[in-house]
Amino acid sequence: MADLNEKALALGKQPSEIRKLFEYGNQRAAEVGRENVFDFSLGNPSIDPPKKVDELVIQLEQTMEPAKLHGYTSGPGEKSVREAMSENVNRRFGRNSTFQNFYITTGAAAGLCIILSTLTADPSDEFVAVAPFFPEYKVFTEAAGAKFVIAEADEKEFQIQFEALEKAFTPHTRGIIINTPNNPSGSVLRPDTVEKLVAFLRNKMKEYGHPIYLISDEPYRELVYDAETRVPFFPNEYEYSIVCYSFSKSLSIPGERIGYLYVPEDIEDSADIFAAVCGAARALGYVCAPAMLQRVAAECADLTSDLNQYRENRDLLYNSLVRMGYSCIHPDGAFYLFVKAPGGNARAFSERAKGENLLLVPSDSFGCKGYLRLAYCVKKEMIERSLPAFERLIREY
Amino acid sequence: MADLNEKALALGKQPSEIRKLFEYGNQRAAEVGRENVFDFSLGNPSIDPPKKVDELVIQLEQTMEPAKLHGYTSGPGEKSVREAMSENVNRRFGRNSTFQNFYITTGAAAGLCIILSTLTADPSDEFVAVAPFFPEYKVFTEAAGAKFVIAEADEKEFQIQFEALEKAFTPHTRGIIINTPNNPSGSVLRPDTVEKLVAFLRNKMKEYGHPIYLISDEPYRELVYDAETRVPFFPNEYEYSIVCYSFSKSLSIPGERIGYLYVPEDIEDSADIFAAVCGAARALGYVCAPAMLQRVAAECADLTSDLNQYRENRDLLYNSLVRMGYSCIHPDGAFYLFVKAPGGNARAFSERAKGENLLLVPSDSFGCKGYLRLAYCVKKEMIERSLPAFERLIREY
Repeated sequence: MADLNEKALALGKQPSEIRKLFEYGNQRAAEVGRENVFDFSLGNPSIDPPKKVDELVIQLEQTMEPAKLHGYTSGPGEKSVREAMSENVNRRFGRNSTFQNFYITTGAAAGLCIILSTLTADPSDEFVAVAPFFPEYKVFTEAAGAKFVIAEADEKEFQIQFEALEKAFTPHTRGIIINTPNNPSGSVLRPDTVEKLVAFLRNKMKEYGHPIYLISDEPYRELVYDAETRVPFFPNEYEYSIVCYSFSKSLSIPGERIGYLYVPEDIEDSADIFAAVCGAARALGYVCAPAMLQRVAAECADLTSDLNQYRENRDLLYNSLVRMGYSCIHPDGAFYLFVKAPGGNARAFSERAKGENLLLVPSDSFGCKGYLRLAYCVKKEMIERSLPAFERLIREY
Repeated sequence: MADLNEKALALGKQPSEIRKLFEYGNQRAAEVGRENVFDFSLGNPSIDPPKKVDELVIQLEQTMEPAKLHGYTSGPGEKSVREAMSENVNRRFGRNSTFQNFYITTGAAAGLCIILSTLTADPSDEFVAVAPFFPEYKVFTEAAGAKFVIAEADEKEFQIQFEALEKAFTPHTRGIIINTPNNPSGSVLRPDTVEKLVAFLRNKMKEYGHPIYLISDEPYRELVYDAETRVPFFPNEYEYSIVCYSFSKSLSIPGERIGYLYVPEDIEDSADIFAAVCGAARALGYVCAPAMLQRVAAECADLTSDLNQYRENRDLLYNSLVRMGYSCIHPDGAFYLFVKAPGGNARAFSERAKGENLLLVPSDSFGCKGYLRLAYCVKKEMIERSLPAFERLIREY
């Protein structure tokens, strides 16, 4: 057999659990009809982008010189686009950034790969993620040449279990990846948790004598459903925060790959970190983020898709499942429900659910066994039609 | 100072020579007016995409459900898009590929990073590039964890100097990067060169006892100007070829980042290589290529921008410079002229040219000193207005 990059081959041959379920769903749909498959596997937004997104595409096509519209932008992005992001963040969070603090990324995955590569100075470097977490964090961290360390989940409230965090930290810890609202639990870190986290990180910095970066992965920042839910903006809380943002979910344009890295103006060595971000992006082959959609995102940075639909879905699914006897944390944000697997074995339950054409992702790859992730960014009718299947399943336990 | 990825920091602090000149041009334009700056530095297409590109964008916006249009595609690309690429290649080059041989990339840079990572099994692996070459090859190869080796240029004809190639090859050689039509020389490898190259590679394989891959970087495949110029299609010539294609120049959409990797159906271990491509792409953060433009490229795979404009530019610039006494190879393809620096020192000449607001990239970073790269993907009027400056400069030698 050919001598290939073994890690890449293993990754390529082992598609994620989520993708596998998704492909299975397509296969079942061909057999029993799409309407009889209840696919809760993928975080692919089901609601349309704000009208302005599509209006702007047409407007740019009609008004801009095409060679310019589709031409290269500079690596960190079109200046006007970076300025728009900076103004948005300054206005919303009282910051003093300029365009020079913003690098427009080809989606949050690119942003994460770039910042992890930027901050990895040595193969002994470690990054900590709090379980449950998006499984690609492990892939991206290891690809950056660092070690991925898991802090066990707080299964009571899906906040942070600080004893577990203490165990996960070592003098090699370079950073922590925080994702709130969280994929897969839907939980949002409360102000008291954030306060404790910041105190913990400051203590660790003192103990180790080097900075510990907080990478805030924010694809779900705008996806909260209750007025009282406050999503922390980490650069205002902690002096070593870097923001990795995405427009994929807020604007329902995940296929277009647009996000940004915000390297705060007041972080120590801000200009050097930004320069290393540019270098890391270049080495990863990210020439520039897609040009036309950069301009669209800039004009739509304040908008979101109609989140009422997700709120309705959440309420319907959460209330129905809890009524049937399922147990799960109340999701304050993102579009996932994290349900305790009846019987305790998530893989077994997921297999059983497939018999009902119900596609639920077992939580094992999220670093926290015994749960099922349900992505409710689906049509409400599908949720309604799926409920009898959920009902039948839990009766067996 | 913060402990960062040193290579990334160095890369980020040292923008490419090309970028530096481009930024200088912007600065001069603000001072003396855009019309008085003759910028030959960047390979950013100046002619518009085929009309169909922009018509299709509008049509897709008007006919497709927006959530679907902008949603995730599968990692290797939308199936219909991969099918279109396969059909295009089968029809044009008599291949028997299927969609499963095509991975839609976020531009050729992504494709190169992905395939170099795929084929790098060990840190001792080496990839050879024939000078002069696109400088990012070095960055991408080293980022993939392999060693970058330069085979000296054939300065007579800008074909391949086989004694130099012999010197560059070692038992660690995993592959060779070929780029024809070539950036920066504009030369196209002749059939006799291709034949000699294939014989050379087959001999080396026998000698070393392992495959040697030929990575064909093809952003300029369609950019040839004379009926008799034949661009080789390497999978038909050599059994270990992999194609890295881009629509950036053929469709004038470099900012949109669309290309593909073609892993031929008849290459040894084709399915494994493809799986490793998927894994490498995932580890680099390439979730999918921009969704809407994937669909546009699929429908436009047979089209090109109006290349007559580049042909006219080439003829005007080449003929004028040669008449003045400049010396350069006749460029059969791409949109670059590779001019011998009068006086022999390219950096010195480039500096001097800046005094005339003439921006020419010195060739040092292309692995071949003493030349200037002139990108003629510019407005013809600019070439016309720049000629007196070229004239004044050569008179000084």
